[in-house]
Amino acid sequence: MRGRLFNFNPGPSALPQKVLEKVQAELMNYRENGLSVMEMSHRSPSFDDIIDTAIARLRRMLKLPDHYSVLFLQGGASMQFAMVPMNLCLQKKPAYINTGTWSTKAINEANIQGLNPIVVASSEDKDFTYIPADVEVPDAIDFLHVTSNNTIKGTQWHAWPVCNAPLVVDMSSDILSRPMDILPCGMVYAGAQKNLGPSGVTLVIIREDMLDRVPEDLPTMFRYTTYAQKNSLYNTPPTFAIYVVGLVLQWLEEDMGGLEEIERYNQKKAKVLYDFIDQADGFYRATAKKDSRSLMNVTFRLKDQDLEDQFVKEGLENGLGGLKGHKSVGGCRASIYNAVPQEAVTALVDFMADFMKRYG
Amino acid sequence: MRGRLFNFNPGPSALPQKVLEKVQAELMNYRENGLSVMEMSHRSPSFDDIIDTAIARLRRMLKLPDHYSVLFLQGGASMQFAMVPMNLCLQKKPAYINTGTWSTKAINEANIQGLNPIVVASSEDKDFTYIPADVEVPDAIDFLHVTSNNTIKGTQWHAWPVCNAPLVVDMSSDILSRPMDILPCGMVYAGAQKNLGPSGVTLVIIREDMLDRVPEDLPTMFRYTTYAQKNSLYNTPPTFAIYVVGLVLQWLEEDMGGLEEIERYNQKKAKVLYDFIDQADGFYRATAKKDSRSLMNVTFRLKDQDLEDQFVKEGLENGLGGLKGHKSVGGCRASIYNAVPQEAVTALVDFMADFMKRYG
Repeated sequence: MRGRLFNFNPGPSALPQKVLEKVQAELMNYRENGLSVMEMSHRSPSFDDIIDTAIARLRRMLKLPDHYSVLFLQGGASMQFAMVPMNLCLQKKPAYINTGTWSTKAINEANIQGLNPIVVASSEDKDFTYIPADVEVPDAIDFLHVTSNNTIKGTQWHAWPVCNAPLVVDMSSDILSRPMDILPCGMVYAGAQKNLGPSGVTLVIIREDMLDRVPEDLPTMFRYTTYAQKNSLYNTPPTFAIYVVGLVLQWLEEDMGGLEEIERYNQKKAKVLYDFIDQADGFYRATAKKDSRSLMNVTFRLKDQDLEDQFVKEGLENGLGGLKGHKSVGGCRASIYNAVPQEAVTALVDFMADFMKRYG
Repeated sequence: MRGRLFNFNPGPSALPQKVLEKVQAELMNYRENGLSVMEMSHRSPSFDDIIDTAIARLRRMLKLPDHYSVLFLQGGASMQFAMVPMNLCLQKKPAYINTGTWSTKAINEANIQGLNPIVVASSEDKDFTYIPADVEVPDAIDFLHVTSNNTIKGTQWHAWPVCNAPLVVDMSSDILSRPMDILPCGMVYAGAQKNLGPSGVTLVIIREDMLDRVPEDLPTMFRYTTYAQKNSLYNTPPTFAIYVVGLVLQWLEEDMGGLEEIERYNQKKAKVLYDFIDQADGFYRATAKKDSRSLMNVTFRLKDQDLEDQFVKEGLENGLGGLKGHKSVGGCRASIYNAVPQEAVTALVDFMADFMKRYG
């Protein structure tokens, strides 16, 4: 039987080995409850403990003030693209910065709702290869929506844009990869399947004053208040996914040492990879502008598509999975989220050096 | 270590032992893919195989004609309460039969949308303890919404109401528990966490002409067409939950012999339990009207709440979990979905007899 791959998938993506081992050990009988977490009532004390412990860990690691709520929703970031403008537009003036595919989709959902979103900055002119600098944001807006990390183009915000309105940040692909200042954020959301756990659960962190904006005539399941008032238990939540998220948070806090430590670890991993690419004499070419590079998704090209296909194919044969770039842009991509270990990056660089020797 | 309980939870609920064993065995490395299903791209051939195999099994077991699509959504039945009227109301005339808590919630969501739902029948007059008979349904409606099984009150439709408009059936708690005639149904939906798998995925079966009704100006994730056009892969679906559903479907088809067989099995389990209750000289009292009884959720009362609490407590001590009635109605409830084995019902009846001997 083949062993486990080094997994560079963009999402769903690698989970910590230790978390998977725990899930496996507890699968038939969760801590002497006599049943699997999948078979457990979401109204049971055991599940209350699972969800409350996960929320408490998040609050601790992010140093969340009390006036932020932590919610678990479903539907992924794509559902949030629609829910954010539905819930948070008091003046019908949502503003966005467009840094790629996901921002574009978020803007499109505001358009569908007839809200005429204000796009205050965009990096579309250079194919989304950079993060706009010195953005000027008008005051009379409901919020400024930012995609903190762009998985497809491999760019990432390294400091929030300056803005008087609340930020709403899609942090799907870099949440908990570094410490962050939550205070400028009215809301943060993240599909779990990159840094948090399996797909099927979406984390929402929302400030009290944003909850006050939620229109009461929205369908129940589309209102953030529905989740906030019931600790995400208005209806049956994705219990198993929340359980795995809780284990990932435990691993991050107890095994990896929290956000400062994971940031150092992530910076080190990314540096090894970018340094190698930069010194590869053009055999590998990083696609994102240097000051905008993502620590999570390292995107690069080779000479042509044939060679890229060969690279991805041989990578997989050498135990390195998920190196293909997004279908919309082609090329190669190594996603090195929290759970991707240093050894995986070392193995990747070794393979890249060997591949270059053979094809360069 | 305590062994596994006999699990009578109403949802999330028992999964087949064999399915859990398979999930556990494959957890770290799915069929030599070198990763967990939780870590696998939803755009990979392996996941395509998982979702396509699940859909094919469903189509086979339900004998679905080609003009029905099988979709996987998120948000549970509660999300469908809102999506159904948003998507399917050409004439703004949705009609409902009210048979309990979940129907009432579905009606409420149509009200929130200002649609003035027509309630053509209700069993509220007798506390939802029966299924309305001889319902007269007006012709000029968009659809007739029915809750096929009422988990809280323990009632179940045993034949569809006669209706010229398409039925929309919330089948969350009895889907695949028996063969069914899909043809009167324009749409069927079911949260997975009773008969299908873990919570976090919702099955939708929808007819072509219903998809034609979907307004194009709805937010992308709220349109059934978004899911139908992309085989439920418009965005990242709840991959692990779909995988488990696939294993449950395999178990149902290959181990249990399909829907005719599981119906016989379910009838036998329910008969043992109802027969025992009916012969208990009033120590146990079934709450649903005889001809409306559910084969899935057997609801009953004891003399008073103290005795019911004692019953639930001693049940758990004897390895029988989840016997408490829904908090809104009290009493006791044994949910005996597909995955609850005959042995569990035998053990329950033995315990009930012993309990009656001691407290009767």
